Amino acid sequence: MIPDYGDAFARLRASCEADWLAYTQHDFLEQLQDGTLPRAAFLSYLRQDYVFLIHFARAWSLAVVKAGSLAEMQAASATVHGLLHHEMGLHIRLCGEAGISAADLAATEEATGNLAYTRYVLDAGLSGDFLDLLAALMPCVLGYGEIGARLIRMAGETPYRDWIDTYGGETWQQICREAGALFDAAIRDRLGEAPQTLPRWRQLERHFRTATRLEAGFWRAGLR
Amino acid sequence: MIPDYGDAFARLRASCEADWLAYTQHDFLEQLQDGTLPRAAFLSYLRQDYVFLIHFARAWSLAVVKAGSLAEMQAASATVHGLLHHEMGLHIRLCGEAGISAADLAATEEATGNLAYTRYVLDAGLSGDFLDLLAALMPCVLGYGEIGARLIRMAGETPYRDWIDTYGGETWQQICREAGALFDAAIRDRLGEAPQTLPRWRQLERHFRTATRLEAGFWRAGLR
Amino acid sequence: MIPDYGDAFARLRASCEADWLAYTQHDFLEQLQDGTLPRAAFLSYLRQDYVFLIHFARAWSLAVVKAGSLAEMQAASATVHGLLHHEMGLHIRLCGEAGISAADLAATEEATGNLAYTRYVLDAGLSGDFLDLLAALMPCVLGYGEIGARLIRMAGETPYRDWIDTYGGETWQQICREAGALFDAAIRDRLGEAPQTLPRWRQLERHFRTATRLEAGFWRAGLR
Amino acid sequence: MIPDYGDAFARLRASCEADWLAYTQHDFLEQLQDGTLPRAAFLSYLRQDYVFLIHFARAWSLAVVKAGSLAEMQAASATVHGLLHHEMGLHIRLCGEAGISAADLAATEEATGNLAYTRYVLDAGLSGDFLDLLAALMPCVLGYGEIGARLIRMAGETPYRDWIDTYGGETWQQICREAGALFDAAIRDRLGEAPQTLPRWRQLERHFRTATRLEAGFWRAGLR
Repeated sequence: MIPDYGDAFARLRASCEADWLAYTQHDFLEQLQDGTLPRAAFLSYLRQDYVFLIHFARAWSLAVVKAGSLAEMQAASATVHGLLHHEMGLHIRLCGEAGISAADLAATEEATGNLAYTRYVLDAGLSGDFLDLLAALMPCVLGYGEIGARLIRMAGETPYRDWIDTYGGETWQQICREAGALFDAAIRDRLGEAPQTLPRWRQLERHFRTATRLEAGFWRAGLR
Repeated sequence: MIPDYGDAFARLRASCEADWLAYTQHDFLEQLQDGTLPRAAFLSYLRQDYVFLIHFARAWSLAVVKAGSLAEMQAASATVHGLLHHEMGLHIRLCGEAGISAADLAATEEATGNLAYTRYVLDAGLSGDFLDLLAALMPCVLGYGEIGARLIRMAGETPYRDWIDTYGGETWQQICREAGALFDAAIRDRLGEAPQTLPRWRQLERHFRTATRLEAGFWRAGLR
Repeated sequence: MIPDYGDAFARLRASCEADWLAYTQHDFLEQLQDGTLPRAAFLSYLRQDYVFLIHFARAWSLAVVKAGSLAEMQAASATVHGLLHHEMGLHIRLCGEAGISAADLAATEEATGNLAYTRYVLDAGLSGDFLDLLAALMPCVLGYGEIGARLIRMAGETPYRDWIDTYGGETWQQICREAGALFDAAIRDRLGEAPQTLPRWRQLERHFRTATRLEAGFWRAGLR
Repeated sequence: MIPDYGDAFARLRASCEADWLAYTQHDFLEQLQDGTLPRAAFLSYLRQDYVFLIHFARAWSLAVVKAGSLAEMQAASATVHGLLHHEMGLHIRLCGEAGISAADLAATEEATGNLAYTRYVLDAGLSGDFLDLLAALMPCVLGYGEIGARLIRMAGETPYRDWIDTYGGETWQQICREAGALFDAAIRDRLGEAPQTLPRWRQLERHFRTATRLEAGFWRAGLR
């Protein structure tokens, strides 16, 4: 069951479905769900994700710089605020419980695949416009939504229940619906009612697909 | 009496004092304080300031993109959040009371001097680093602080009492002290203990002075 | 007679014709053509134009950063190369003949209207994509072409004959035709065959019109 | 023997020597020198390098945007011009001789490690200033210089003699000396005579080291 995060998401997801499933149904997630994922793999992922969130927040801030209306600015800015003032606190807390201090966390050496993804997203923003940037941001936001929605239906006993509940829970699902709606409105306000008929759409597909592949690489690195 | 907003402010202010006074003691402000400022001039200023705040929030978002630590990101992001989710609401309310609708406000034609300032600040960020961007942002934040602190001590009856109380009040003064501290710490973390001895400092002076002059132009336009 | 610099130019020019004529038929140019322009005004313009060209070259370099194909990169890069390695040399020579040294020239204080224009163009690039940036760049390139083409047909004896011959001459006219073709192709490659039917087109019109108005301000400053 | 490409290079190279040697003395290069490198590996590298050069030229264009003087702009712009109008032609010719058409070349799927490097460099420019960008660009320019200088002294019969002669030859060595001089002067003009004593220097070391590691990953990918 594909969650309803809007029209653009449905189209872009379908344009690279094999890549999308390789990302959202990766082994890392199966092991997360059935509890067989080694603790060390999860902690290594959490640490990389902390570094990831820093650059992800930078990319959403670039979206504020590139927004075309006050409403778009407010939506992007609320995301930055949530990431920096709430979500990163969660990582600090979870890692702290596992004996990783905030200083340790901040000193994490950034993995190449991690770096590749966030810098790609930032460059999508530097080289393109608000839509290019959103197209590269969406696979992370909405992919975690789809993963969470799927795992929460299936998950039984697993030490990673918290993680699954976070992304499968109503708060994150609502964030995903709003992000999808922001993306749909931004496209309509710029490209009109049939954006997928324009050459411009191919570029959005490329950003979405590349970001999706880079996300899959992130899980792959987590299993090594 | 010069408010204490930190070391860098004190030095940069002193490096262009004539320009600084032309900005912070402009006729526009004298008229604001003694109540002789025509209502139309004030409303015209408010409308331009609304457009200004949009681009000012974009510039602070660029500061998040360019920050060097989580603490710097959080400080800049909190400013963006305050601007977009609170301060702009104030403008909408004040203008609404004067019969200017939110749609009117959003349709304001941006004056050249207004545009010059914010785009200069954004380019200071694009061409330089976090310090260059802050050096160009500070004259607005801290200048309004110094103006508010001076006017609140002198002001009697004036229809613009609200404006004076906003920038002279403790909340804004605290924002200014924090912004000054952010700036000082950012300089120390990059340029060490004697930044003013480096050629780099000349560039920060240039940004600070140019932004100060452009601020004075803003008042000048308000009186036309 | 409107020169043929392509479809997008014709449409955008028509969308703001009053502003366009205020720019391309400004008094400054009439005086340039009939020779009544004071020498000091011309030199002051040349000095500002030198500073302008520096930021204009920066904006064309940003176009290389934002290009979508090798051909677009090469076109934009050739412009940068021409500006930095040839056109600026011309300014240095002309000013030198008038007793303004290269050091004097580099120390020119940038006028607000000058600053407003180039920083606006740079921000069109930072906030938008390749098309937004080109839409803001075109009024300068193509406006000078239209001005040159008109003046060269009319001009008699004037001390500013060199300037007129430069922009009315075949080399610059060819540059304009190529810039217009680059713009048309870039639009078609992104927005397809009916770009003017998309909401996106309104944004290109806004950039073109704002840049046109800022150009007019540049002449106005030259006469002061 | 370490080539003399200036002071900053010598210091930064020494600050991460193990990483530097892992990059400049990688197995890929030993096989290139003794001729055992499989043809397929070399062609795969050439194709990736073509995509690399596109983004590398974009990064040098960003350096023009961020330069602080006409001389810095001209130096960076000359590099862009050389890359886009000459060096990429070489790749097209070499690949053409091996039966890879220009269209094939342009359709090369960008490897993650390749993407990681160039986007990291571009982000060093977006987040930092001219020095940050140069610090991330130098490992490519000067590393190829050091590699070429070493291999040309040792190389005997190898089908890759052309490549070695290109980077070991006097033209490239001169480019490296000029790039190193540009970097030294840019540092001195901003940070004065003892830049390595400033906290700022740590950031330049980080960029140089990260870029060096990403370069090594590029060879590693070439051998897979």
